[in-house]
Amino acid sequence: MDAALDLYERLFGAVLEHRASVEDQGVDAASLRIGTSRVELLAPLSADTPVGRFLDRRGQGLHHVAYEVDDIERALRDARAEGAELIDPEPRAGLFGLRVAFIHPESAAGVLVELVQPTNGERDG
Amino acid sequence: MDAALDLYERLFGAVLEHRASVEDQGVDAASLRIGTSRVELLAPLSADTPVGRFLDRRGQGLHHVAYEVDDIERALRDARAEGAELIDPEPRAGLFGLRVAFIHPESAAGVLVELVQPTNGERDG
Repeated sequence: MDAALDLYERLFGAVLEHRASVEDQGVDAASLRIGTSRVELLAPLSADTPVGRFLDRRGQGLHHVAYEVDDIERALRDARAEGAELIDPEPRAGLFGLRVAFIHPESAAGVLVELVQPTNGERDG
Repeated sequence: MDAALDLYERLFGAVLEHRASVEDQGVDAASLRIGTSRVELLAPLSADTPVGRFLDRRGQGLHHVAYEVDDIERALRDARAEGAELIDPEPRAGLFGLRVAFIHPESAAGVLVELVQPTNGERDG
């Protein structure tokens, strides 16, 4: 994680917003600002975690894409109405106090998708 | 591609900006607007193309991340100065008239990264 943070700061001008070790999700996570977007770096706390298993299977790389929504309950209702398979039928607490829910990659052309409703302090512009 | 476009429009409110078949790159490509970001959908024109080989090896999923830059020559000089391995040492013509250059995943924590300098008509707000 330290090496990746250094890399993102040097190479892409990323600005660190938050960093935390989240035991119950098994990750060391860092939220970075790059331009108008955010990039989240994830490192596993042990091999037997979702991110540890991803790394073991695929190696380092892109894990998922997150879209910011204003109203995550409505976004989940709309996604379900469009036939999406929801990993999280209800919003749950994500990293850094965000409210999140994941959509199954089978429903999104092979891409794991996270819907994120920021807390007020995190909202863009 | 048609199914993926329909999915992205319905599920994520994506707005199609451009679509083109680019023979020399072997792709059917669509540029979508989602919020303040863009998502590019790529489908191979045949199996023996970079995107065709990616699909064969990895299946559908995330292929690369692109960052918009104002001055791609300067961005490439800066990346080289930071020790990045450049797939394209000089900018080249990308899809939709963009000027692009790729950075090797080995230099970016396993993520294939594209630098993109938009043409004037494409620049964000």
